[in-house]
Amino acid sequence: METMRIAIVAPPWFAVPPTGYGGIELVVSYLADGLARRGHAVTLFAAGGSRTEAQLVATFAEPPSALLGSVTVEAQHILAAYDRWREFDLIHDHTFLGPVVGAALPVPVVHTLHGPVTAENRDLIHALGQRVQLVAISHHQRSTLPAGVRATVIHNGVDPAAFPFRESPGDYLLFCGRINPEKGPVQAIEIARRAGLPLLMVVKINEQLEREYWEAEVRPRLRGLDVEVKEQPPTEEKLRAYRDALATLFPIQWPEPFGLVMIESMATGTPVIAFRNGSVPEVVQDGVTGIICGGVEEAAEAAWRAKELDRRECRRRVERHFSAALNVLRHEQLYRAVLAEGARREGAAQLPLRLDPAPGAVDGASPA
Amino acid sequence: METMRIAIVAPPWFAVPPTGYGGIELVVSYLADGLARRGHAVTLFAAGGSRTEAQLVATFAEPPSALLGSVTVEAQHILAAYDRWREFDLIHDHTFLGPVVGAALPVPVVHTLHGPVTAENRDLIHALGQRVQLVAISHHQRSTLPAGVRATVIHNGVDPAAFPFRESPGDYLLFCGRINPEKGPVQAIEIARRAGLPLLMVVKINEQLEREYWEAEVRPRLRGLDVEVKEQPPTEEKLRAYRDALATLFPIQWPEPFGLVMIESMATGTPVIAFRNGSVPEVVQDGVTGIICGGVEEAAEAAWRAKELDRRECRRRVERHFSAALNVLRHEQLYRAVLAEGARREGAAQLPLRLDPAPGAVDGASPA
Repeated sequence: METMRIAIVAPPWFAVPPTGYGGIELVVSYLADGLARRGHAVTLFAAGGSRTEAQLVATFAEPPSALLGSVTVEAQHILAAYDRWREFDLIHDHTFLGPVVGAALPVPVVHTLHGPVTAENRDLIHALGQRVQLVAISHHQRSTLPAGVRATVIHNGVDPAAFPFRESPGDYLLFCGRINPEKGPVQAIEIARRAGLPLLMVVKINEQLEREYWEAEVRPRLRGLDVEVKEQPPTEEKLRAYRDALATLFPIQWPEPFGLVMIESMATGTPVIAFRNGSVPEVVQDGVTGIICGGVEEAAEAAWRAKELDRRECRRRVERHFSAALNVLRHEQLYRAVLAEGARREGAAQLPLRLDPAPGAVDGASPA
Repeated sequence: METMRIAIVAPPWFAVPPTGYGGIELVVSYLADGLARRGHAVTLFAAGGSRTEAQLVATFAEPPSALLGSVTVEAQHILAAYDRWREFDLIHDHTFLGPVVGAALPVPVVHTLHGPVTAENRDLIHALGQRVQLVAISHHQRSTLPAGVRATVIHNGVDPAAFPFRESPGDYLLFCGRINPEKGPVQAIEIARRAGLPLLMVVKINEQLEREYWEAEVRPRLRGLDVEVKEQPPTEEKLRAYRDALATLFPIQWPEPFGLVMIESMATGTPVIAFRNGSVPEVVQDGVTGIICGGVEEAAEAAWRAKELDRRECRRRVERHFSAALNVLRHEQLYRAVLAEGARREGAAQLPLRLDPAPGAVDGASPA
């Protein structure tokens, strides 16, 4: 198989891989490293401080995390990356603005949708879908795309070998995530209270809205409960927190596009007690690697049943369906299909390129 | 002279020309019409409802004014426009995102800086300046560019024939503009109060921050004063408001990049009493078409002297230095220079193209 010259454009906000928070950066890191190890000429456009087996082009000396979300900053990042489009067979873009540039260029562009489809971005996604190859990160996310928009589903993955494993269940419940209403921290507290089990919260509270929600809605509910809070601990400590839990709570309040927390937890052997929403039913195998619930009361009962689940099954599910290695292979397969499609066409410079689903892609992660 | 195939990309927020507020849209309208009249094949990318002598490509059926500033909406607009880059000799972009796309393309792109240079956008403008031809709308604005960034100065223009003229001075002072601290509405009120002259305020107060500033800082100061307020009146009425004034107040509190209000006022014969800031000294000829002041007290005295100024000189200044016709000619000259520069180069596809100043451009609007 021939090697490909691949550009991977990461968001600029955090290092790749992230030193703390940064789900997209984690997934991008696995992808860039995995493709490089498979012999491809991979160039990663990311912030300085990134560590990668690809060739790194640092568009900022330091990640501009304090300016998170600034379109001006993202524009600078994109400008630097797309300067070099002529050097690549294919560009895989994980940013918001990048695909808008890429759509105009005579080079195939793959764009992963990392966020939800909203009323505001539906039309833009529809337009992008005519011009670049979209990747959805779950079947559920794909089902929310505007009519006529095609995307290939490639689930996120992690490297199970990087996660500690424990066969016997721990004795506390874990909540891990940003403090905002969508992630359900209030519901997690209520589940732990009703179950009468200790709760460990591994949280991110450093943005304005997160702080406000924490002070107004979350912190007041902790009084009198057995709750420990850790704010963005080092990765090692976070992994131990997963491993030593009885179950991870995922009382998600919105249609989560993927939910890395679920596979991180399962990778350590810890089952997930999740609300039925978004990608949950295709990530958690209900009754095997976790328990899918309709609400707080049901989840509080499920918490006690979590210790009956086989923690080896949790880990195995990640190894089989949500590994970084599988994610890399699927992307490689998709890239080759996109390039083959382009070569077949008269005037390969004429976009759009669309493929759906990725020919030959194995869909191994359907709900149990 | 050969005709050129020119794309003009307007912002999507208002129709071109605007039915009410919309300075950029007014300037773009004159440019597109003027170039089309000179025989060029001009395509205008703008919102629906626009009226132009160019070929209109309406990216939205209705101007998405309610979503003003949404990057997602601007991205949709840009995506549609840049789909067709191969059809043009040159693209002149007036949006924020467009030049980021254009910078990557093998077509010459001209980008007009319509706003101020800020701490946030300095680095982006620096990067853009290496890749596209920048146009500054005043010498002052150009002087604020980051070191090493080149731009050609082309002042905004209006069509004097579209403005009513009156030779004898009116008897009230006029403030015309958005209600925000930068435009100095509070200072305008104070100038009128001290001068003991009536004030007419033609204002835009429909955005959240404008409303808040109006309620908190402006409206309370009107009590007991002879002030009339008109909120976004029809264009005809606005033009009469200019024409019938003694002087227009422009107590600008920030380095205004250009300030259309000044030339609109002068086009009707009404001199401008302005604070020394930004482009003011190169737009108003001090002591001839207006009086440039250091503060409120000085401006209140100047108000009475405004009737001594020759209103024909005001109009003449616009005809000579700030006409749409001149603006069109200078752009045509710049485009030809950019194309000639591109053709001279080995590999015309290799940007950056930079020109400074536009060869042959006449700088007829230096301060008196």
